Amino acid sequence: MNFCSDNVAGIAPEILAALAAANRGAASAYGADEATARLERRLAEIFEHEVAVFPVATGTAANALALATAVPPWGVVYCHAEAHIVVDECGAPEFFSGGARMAGLAAPHGKISAAQLAPLLPGGKGIVHHMQPAAVSLTQATEAGTVYRPDEIAASGELARRHGLVFHVDGARFANALVGLAARPAEITWKAGIDILSFGATKNGAAAAEAVIFFDKARAADFEFRRKRGGHLFSKMRFLSVQLEAYLTDDLWLRNARHANAMASQLATGLAALPGIRLRHPVEANEIFVELPELLIEHLLGKGFQFYRWDGPCIRLVTAFDTEPSSVDAFLAAARGFIRPNASA
Amino acid sequence: MNFCSDNVAGIAPEILAALAAANRGAASAYGADEATARLERRLAEIFEHEVAVFPVATGTAANALALATAVPPWGVVYCHAEAHIVVDECGAPEFFSGGARMAGLAAPHGKISAAQLAPLLPGGKGIVHHMQPAAVSLTQATEAGTVYRPDEIAASGELARRHGLVFHVDGARFANALVGLAARPAEITWKAGIDILSFGATKNGAAAAEAVIFFDKARAADFEFRRKRGGHLFSKMRFLSVQLEAYLTDDLWLRNARHANAMASQLATGLAALPGIRLRHPVEANEIFVELPELLIEHLLGKGFQFYRWDGPCIRLVTAFDTEPSSVDAFLAAARGFIRPNASA
Amino acid sequence: MNFCSDNVAGIAPEILAALAAANRGAASAYGADEATARLERRLAEIFEHEVAVFPVATGTAANALALATAVPPWGVVYCHAEAHIVVDECGAPEFFSGGARMAGLAAPHGKISAAQLAPLLPGGKGIVHHMQPAAVSLTQATEAGTVYRPDEIAASGELARRHGLVFHVDGARFANALVGLAARPAEITWKAGIDILSFGATKNGAAAAEAVIFFDKARAADFEFRRKRGGHLFSKMRFLSVQLEAYLTDDLWLRNARHANAMASQLATGLAALPGIRLRHPVEANEIFVELPELLIEHLLGKGFQFYRWDGPCIRLVTAFDTEPSSVDAFLAAARGFIRPNASA
Amino acid sequence: MNFCSDNVAGIAPEILAALAAANRGAASAYGADEATARLERRLAEIFEHEVAVFPVATGTAANALALATAVPPWGVVYCHAEAHIVVDECGAPEFFSGGARMAGLAAPHGKISAAQLAPLLPGGKGIVHHMQPAAVSLTQATEAGTVYRPDEIAASGELARRHGLVFHVDGARFANALVGLAARPAEITWKAGIDILSFGATKNGAAAAEAVIFFDKARAADFEFRRKRGGHLFSKMRFLSVQLEAYLTDDLWLRNARHANAMASQLATGLAALPGIRLRHPVEANEIFVELPELLIEHLLGKGFQFYRWDGPCIRLVTAFDTEPSSVDAFLAAARGFIRPNASA
Repeated sequence: MNFCSDNVAGIAPEILAALAAANRGAASAYGADEATARLERRLAEIFEHEVAVFPVATGTAANALALATAVPPWGVVYCHAEAHIVVDECGAPEFFSGGARMAGLAAPHGKISAAQLAPLLPGGKGIVHHMQPAAVSLTQATEAGTVYRPDEIAASGELARRHGLVFHVDGARFANALVGLAARPAEITWKAGIDILSFGATKNGAAAAEAVIFFDKARAADFEFRRKRGGHLFSKMRFLSVQLEAYLTDDLWLRNARHANAMASQLATGLAALPGIRLRHPVEANEIFVELPELLIEHLLGKGFQFYRWDGPCIRLVTAFDTEPSSVDAFLAAARGFIRPNASA
Repeated sequence: MNFCSDNVAGIAPEILAALAAANRGAASAYGADEATARLERRLAEIFEHEVAVFPVATGTAANALALATAVPPWGVVYCHAEAHIVVDECGAPEFFSGGARMAGLAAPHGKISAAQLAPLLPGGKGIVHHMQPAAVSLTQATEAGTVYRPDEIAASGELARRHGLVFHVDGARFANALVGLAARPAEITWKAGIDILSFGATKNGAAAAEAVIFFDKARAADFEFRRKRGGHLFSKMRFLSVQLEAYLTDDLWLRNARHANAMASQLATGLAALPGIRLRHPVEANEIFVELPELLIEHLLGKGFQFYRWDGPCIRLVTAFDTEPSSVDAFLAAARGFIRPNASA
Repeated sequence: MNFCSDNVAGIAPEILAALAAANRGAASAYGADEATARLERRLAEIFEHEVAVFPVATGTAANALALATAVPPWGVVYCHAEAHIVVDECGAPEFFSGGARMAGLAAPHGKISAAQLAPLLPGGKGIVHHMQPAAVSLTQATEAGTVYRPDEIAASGELARRHGLVFHVDGARFANALVGLAARPAEITWKAGIDILSFGATKNGAAAAEAVIFFDKARAADFEFRRKRGGHLFSKMRFLSVQLEAYLTDDLWLRNARHANAMASQLATGLAALPGIRLRHPVEANEIFVELPELLIEHLLGKGFQFYRWDGPCIRLVTAFDTEPSSVDAFLAAARGFIRPNASA
Repeated sequence: MNFCSDNVAGIAPEILAALAAANRGAASAYGADEATARLERRLAEIFEHEVAVFPVATGTAANALALATAVPPWGVVYCHAEAHIVVDECGAPEFFSGGARMAGLAAPHGKISAAQLAPLLPGGKGIVHHMQPAAVSLTQATEAGTVYRPDEIAASGELARRHGLVFHVDGARFANALVGLAARPAEITWKAGIDILSFGATKNGAAAAEAVIFFDKARAADFEFRRKRGGHLFSKMRFLSVQLEAYLTDDLWLRNARHANAMASQLATGLAALPGIRLRHPVEANEIFVELPELLIEHLLGKGFQFYRWDGPCIRLVTAFDTEPSSVDAFLAAARGFIRPNASA
């Protein structure tokens, strides 16, 4: 039973079926196909706003291309110190932007705030010696498994607007955040000031499909050239687009995310009830950071459960669209059994 | 009936089936899965040589990452003036390498020769004012639909070795070349001096899968970092690797390529037999460049055949693994009918 | 006697005196000094147009920064195949632009023409697979020692404007061209459509000083950040600016250039009169490309004259602001003496 | 009286004289002159070690080129959060390296320590998701006006060596540090593990001259290409080299630095003796960070003294090789007069 990440999961059956269904006859290459056009229209409906949509295959590509479009090579992107763009992309945003700086800010529970950003701005704007403030990037859901509320996003959005910064969201787990908040997509994006969204699907059931969504089409002018020269323009684009289309059909994205979040909640609740176990962050999406006694960690690994050790006594558990309730039960039973060996089951 | 490109085709059924088959249970992410390991072993067998293998999703990514690993930012890559890396990648090799130069050389039938390269070398090597000769890149099959023979490759390979240049092949249509030559893979790669191969599968039946193959593992040291920061390291890597694995199973890659080449050959032979029609290049793989009267071009387009106009009277026809013989027949019949309206069928 | 290049010369006495004169007391750093402000006003007078002026220390920096400001990373710069930006800057324009392509065109006597550019445009503009036409760059005086006439420049300027390309001039030897043409600075720059000029002084008497001049200030918005992050913003900027100021005072730049051109003309005329000697290009500035018998080349080198061998029988002789007429006489005497050993002097 | 920076000063008379003296006859361009060769030999003597020396004109160029040679585009450079490479170069190291990250660490008095670095290492070395630890860069003297002692440098040097990191020093004020420590150059460079030194002269009397010094020549292999394509290879190189040569002749560099440091010490001592004034950092070189009452700051500015406000009540005063003792006296008198208006002088 593998709780390492939501990317150890496979493909949601509906998405696999869509790949097979799309495999009929010839289709124009490089995004000139019908599925890609339909996808853009569908996302415009979902977000209740005109959008420019660019499918890519990885979250790193989505973030790095989005940010490269948003900031100059001497730009500064304010984000959380643990953000994927800082820690987990081997410098992709720096590479695609030509040297921009990811200014990672430490903050509790993976969330930076407008209050924290405000004193950093305007941050040497116009002074030639300094890299220039250019963007704010939030991660939604965060790397700590928490979510930004609409008002929190809007506060940073207002600040970004006032200082002329582009406002980006890394939404690798956007669906998990959305269902966690019970919000409408518009509320936590353009209505809160978001300019560009990296809209993830891979972690929530796609094989490899993300979309970069611009709420201001004018900002997207360069994107196509950047995507192409980044090697991210797929010739057989339909097979990216139909993944996303299936993802958005019949609320698959929301159903998958609800399931993953429910599994995480159940796991967190069960663990938190045990003595000597402490949740490090609120569990608001599908990731759990929890501190356990070292002997218990070893016990669980010995039992064949897979997960990552974080720092010190903390481990990370991630649930996915396909996490079996029985796996959660088994994990909790193993933990309980270790802590209360004499209790009746 | 679409002869625009081999990338308007879909996925070979065997490869689609492999995607479905791989969709069972969890798998380690980012290439630590079993399918990726098997793929490397399989390619070592096929090439009869130790190899380092890196799956990516597009040919542009494969070429740009391969060349970036091979040359410094001030390096010169000698290649054909019509090479994909010069003309069709929007500067991806320049981007990934940090500014290297693609020195495109004009030459007949898409093929540069050792005789043409020799007088350009050593080319200012060591002189600080000049960009530095760093690599030779051939396209196999070429952009003109021709193929390099083993002795032709070896002659350039010997030159590259003597001048300390890395020798790369863009093999987006490698299988088409291979079956065209009836050669063994080793003969037209490492035995002829090739250091790095962009091994294509997408144009020959994969959804989106290529492999960068290093015949000298030492050269590959940086590749993983470049791939990751280029956004080309897939989390659910197994779904790239199994495409390639299926592609190499039961000679699917060779069977698909043989079919595409046979269709091209049949089309070329039929067209060449007609008066007023001239093949611009020998047809040695699955692309046909053919000069037609303008009225015939319009006639064929009007009949619903799809293909690209090249320059002047020349059009390009590309066949694929799934080209129907009946489509070829229909195309030829339409052409014949236009040219000899009174001939009995 | 050194005819290798105009950069083997030292500093014009007037410029050295200006450095000494500027060395009084403190001055604001990084261009906020008075000399830098005066320089911009002086250049506006000379060019009869509002200008934005940025002093830098090398011609390579001037060109690379100017072009980086003008074109996107996926831009194409059309220029002569022998242009300094293609051949002699080790890829600086590629580096500063983030990967743009220098499309070097072969053309006689170092000069590309509007007639040659026209069929290359619009050149795939808007097609995502292709790098995008973005600029035209002329070299004035050219690398062949010739000059573009105002009407020639204007023809390319009109073409550039029509296709939305930025029009740049590498004027490392701008003064030599100007006096060769007996034109006004405005005529061969903004009146002919030039947007950005790399205005050279180093080859004509400065220690190390060039200015990037924008005739449209709006284009210069990013320049300061690029210059700073390129390491080309001098703290003690006054010592760059006063070199340029002295260069422009009392027509020093024109006097120096007239002298260098006159020396070249005298040398060319003398050589052309000798049998077996052929000028490869018209001598219109301060460079002479001349084909000599090999034995004469060796004789001259043996006599201690310094110059570069070009290709085959061709050598390059460059004169400068400080070339002594006696050196020219000595060179001609040595050549004559070798060719006509028995003639009375 | 200007205490804004040591770069508001002019050129030391000995260096200006050297420029004039070097202005005799022709000299080979691009560093093939005799002065440049002599400079390398002289620096080898001074550092008691074989060195490769590359003159450039700005400290930003020196640092950015040095670091680009030392680290891959995905490298991490550990340094102080206030380092010039982080704060004052508009991203030059990111630009020249192709996207490396400056990991700025907060630490008191401008000095990072081995104890602070140790827990950060090996820092994800070999894990493809993370940028890779690649270098440590110290600033000597620091941006806080303090200096690293030999044992402090050696401790970080030992750590760098153990983890395979390149060890760089930004020595824009190297002479000020050296005389502050009364150390030999070797002790605070290669003997303490330093691989590359940005050796500054501009702030201590040159017009515009720095040298990048490699103590391991093998590391310098790429440098020439990077310098050229960065636009930092001067054609009339002798005029850079003789500035540095004069700087090192008859201990000019040490005499200038001793004077600047003495002026700073006198200023600091005088200020520290006044009530309500607090030195923020020890004054160990030629910079003073001192907290004053706001009204006193305004009084001093009103009297025509020039200096920068830092943060809050802190101002920065910088002395230089040409700071007049009378200026220091005047500053102190003005401060005393404001604080103790009724005291007899």
